[in-house]
Amino acid sequence: MLIGNAVVGQSGGPTAAINATLAGVIRGALEAECIGKVYGMRNGIEGFMEKRVISLDGIFEDENKLKLLEQTPAAALGSCRRKLPDPESDDAKDVEFYNKLFSVIDELDIKYFFYIGGNDSMDTVKKMSIYAKKVHKDIRIIGVPKTIDNDLTMTDHTPGFGSAAKYIATTVREIIRDCSVYTVRAVTVVEIMGRDAGWLTASSAIGRVVDGMAPDYVYLPERAFDMESFFADIEKAFEKHPDVVVAVSEGLQFADGRYVGEGTQSGVADAFGHKYLAGTGKALEMAIKEKFGCKVRSVELNLPQRCAGHLLSLTDIEESVRIGREAVALAVSGGSGEMMVFVREEGDIYHCRVDHRSVMGIANSTRYVPDEFINDENNNVTDSCCEYLLPLIDGEYPTMFYNGLPAHIIL
Amino acid sequence: MLIGNAVVGQSGGPTAAINATLAGVIRGALEAECIGKVYGMRNGIEGFMEKRVISLDGIFEDENKLKLLEQTPAAALGSCRRKLPDPESDDAKDVEFYNKLFSVIDELDIKYFFYIGGNDSMDTVKKMSIYAKKVHKDIRIIGVPKTIDNDLTMTDHTPGFGSAAKYIATTVREIIRDCSVYTVRAVTVVEIMGRDAGWLTASSAIGRVVDGMAPDYVYLPERAFDMESFFADIEKAFEKHPDVVVAVSEGLQFADGRYVGEGTQSGVADAFGHKYLAGTGKALEMAIKEKFGCKVRSVELNLPQRCAGHLLSLTDIEESVRIGREAVALAVSGGSGEMMVFVREEGDIYHCRVDHRSVMGIANSTRYVPDEFINDENNNVTDSCCEYLLPLIDGEYPTMFYNGLPAHIIL
Repeated sequence: MLIGNAVVGQSGGPTAAINATLAGVIRGALEAECIGKVYGMRNGIEGFMEKRVISLDGIFEDENKLKLLEQTPAAALGSCRRKLPDPESDDAKDVEFYNKLFSVIDELDIKYFFYIGGNDSMDTVKKMSIYAKKVHKDIRIIGVPKTIDNDLTMTDHTPGFGSAAKYIATTVREIIRDCSVYTVRAVTVVEIMGRDAGWLTASSAIGRVVDGMAPDYVYLPERAFDMESFFADIEKAFEKHPDVVVAVSEGLQFADGRYVGEGTQSGVADAFGHKYLAGTGKALEMAIKEKFGCKVRSVELNLPQRCAGHLLSLTDIEESVRIGREAVALAVSGGSGEMMVFVREEGDIYHCRVDHRSVMGIANSTRYVPDEFINDENNNVTDSCCEYLLPLIDGEYPTMFYNGLPAHIIL
Repeated sequence: MLIGNAVVGQSGGPTAAINATLAGVIRGALEAECIGKVYGMRNGIEGFMEKRVISLDGIFEDENKLKLLEQTPAAALGSCRRKLPDPESDDAKDVEFYNKLFSVIDELDIKYFFYIGGNDSMDTVKKMSIYAKKVHKDIRIIGVPKTIDNDLTMTDHTPGFGSAAKYIATTVREIIRDCSVYTVRAVTVVEIMGRDAGWLTASSAIGRVVDGMAPDYVYLPERAFDMESFFADIEKAFEKHPDVVVAVSEGLQFADGRYVGEGTQSGVADAFGHKYLAGTGKALEMAIKEKFGCKVRSVELNLPQRCAGHLLSLTDIEESVRIGREAVALAVSGGSGEMMVFVREEGDIYHCRVDHRSVMGIANSTRYVPDEFINDENNNVTDSCCEYLLPLIDGEYPTMFYNGLPAHIIL
């Protein structure tokens, strides 16, 4: 049994569930007999290098505070975007970096190191694991994934995605209701996050298999975007109803690789002469107005997609807590250099078990929406895509409100 | 006792509570012995003129459907924007308009006419009341206000505002959490609806009197916007923390009357040569980038502000139902040509009673945020403003979900 302290950090972009995973790690660490103190890194590895840590075990003896943490969006410990140097490098600066990092580890008697984040954070876990092995350091290092983008390989889905998907599916349906009240022709373009993979944009369609209410079309970055086909799609939708709603990924590209949002840059500059990137939704809004002369609106869902703590998927939050807790269990039982993953069990009833994969095998690759989830016309997702997504948004986390507002904890 | 049928219509822009008021009117009408059938106008007065009505009494004998209606955002009956002609006019076209309108009323044996909407809809109620009196028609005509903008005179607040305010306060706080995770200087500008009155933008500050979490600054359209003071404000905020969040109204104007969002129009055109109105948030984003060279983002809360049925103020929805129900009671007891209003009772505990005011007294004027609700620096609201707003967002409507998504009714 390895006895010592634990430290946990958060890294990369915020999600609405990254604190639920933090709560899971804290719960696991508080329960583990071999773990003494539980530290939290301020601003990830960057703060840790400067010994900016916070003692978590005292604060979170109070179960209510763990509950509050679960529902607080964005990284409560703060985050960073820091790429670690090559652990095999002999460069003096690189050697010094790892010396310093591991001296902080020694100073705080850290034996258990947990890092919650996306691809870059798993890279950190990998490099630290390699270095620890190189210097024969007995420390357990575990990565716990999070990203609203759902684009990590080796896992069925990522913690944080389900809540983002629930928010997007819900909000797009509300926009559809809003757009349905008038009788004049109008197109509403909803721009959704996801520069490379279309998982979030695909989520806007989930309602289709529930009660039929979903956007007319859904365009993912996995397919080249063609303006003429897009116009033809809208034309066809107008034959059915005057209120057309389409969901588009921010990352849409034409066949020649140009971003759809790029069009609005060329020749466009603000009062100061700045080139101005309007975004995919705005570019399509202008193109539709030019083509159809009808009322057009674009709505960018923007930051709320990743921080809407008031509308959390119960499944996502429960799983996010669980994967954090099991990360600790794995470390305690001897695991290290591993990333936690979800494996979806076969069968009609949704169930995911938590498993782990060696971080050594992680390539910095993106998990795209597969072909069988995109229709032949490249303008929507298939029912099987919706069926994959549906259980991930299931259930509503019972958010605690105080004076009419969701309560947050600030560390 | 006036015996006959009732009709109810919805008009103007959608809100998340306008269907709750519809549910209130339906409940009231179903209970009233003197009311036979209950019709709903499709697309307000416009559809009614074409006899496009739907029979509501059958559908809503089912209490569950009334509950579903309460939580469905946007006008379930459809809406319109139609200004009625002068009822005193002798112009043949105008006379024909009212002849046609009242022939539909006769044909459907309508004795009770309810119209839910904003200023323009109250104008409709007023004109129809004048015409009915002129032709000695015994019909009870009542207006029920709704608008997220909260800018109607004669009422303490408007149905629909509380839910919009709750969504805005909640979402801005989540954005504040999201922006807090990094250590680099960054400004986030949140653009909020309200072209003339700043009530919605003011709502972003409510959290300040709850737990201190609110934007650094809040700029309302009631005050001329000054770019140099704005820069000075941001400078001052940077002294305290690196993550600055400001809330701005879409309707901000400079002292000379130019809209702040207008700046981005001049000289800016898209690929097709269109002038491009970027909006207040985008304009300020660019100005801050130019001035400070730091990371800047703008987030337009956009349509979800008025249709976020998944996050409803319980107070707002209960009051919205109540005001609809009391509109029917007033009509049944002989009232006509009246608009329903809320009157806030004096005292420490919030209580509003429903009352009514003659629509004849309604000037087409806007209720602005008063001076005592805006601070001396013109860059925030006062605590007394927050105290006025706080009870309006109180309580959470228990939204019913189905398969992870809020359930809606479609009529």
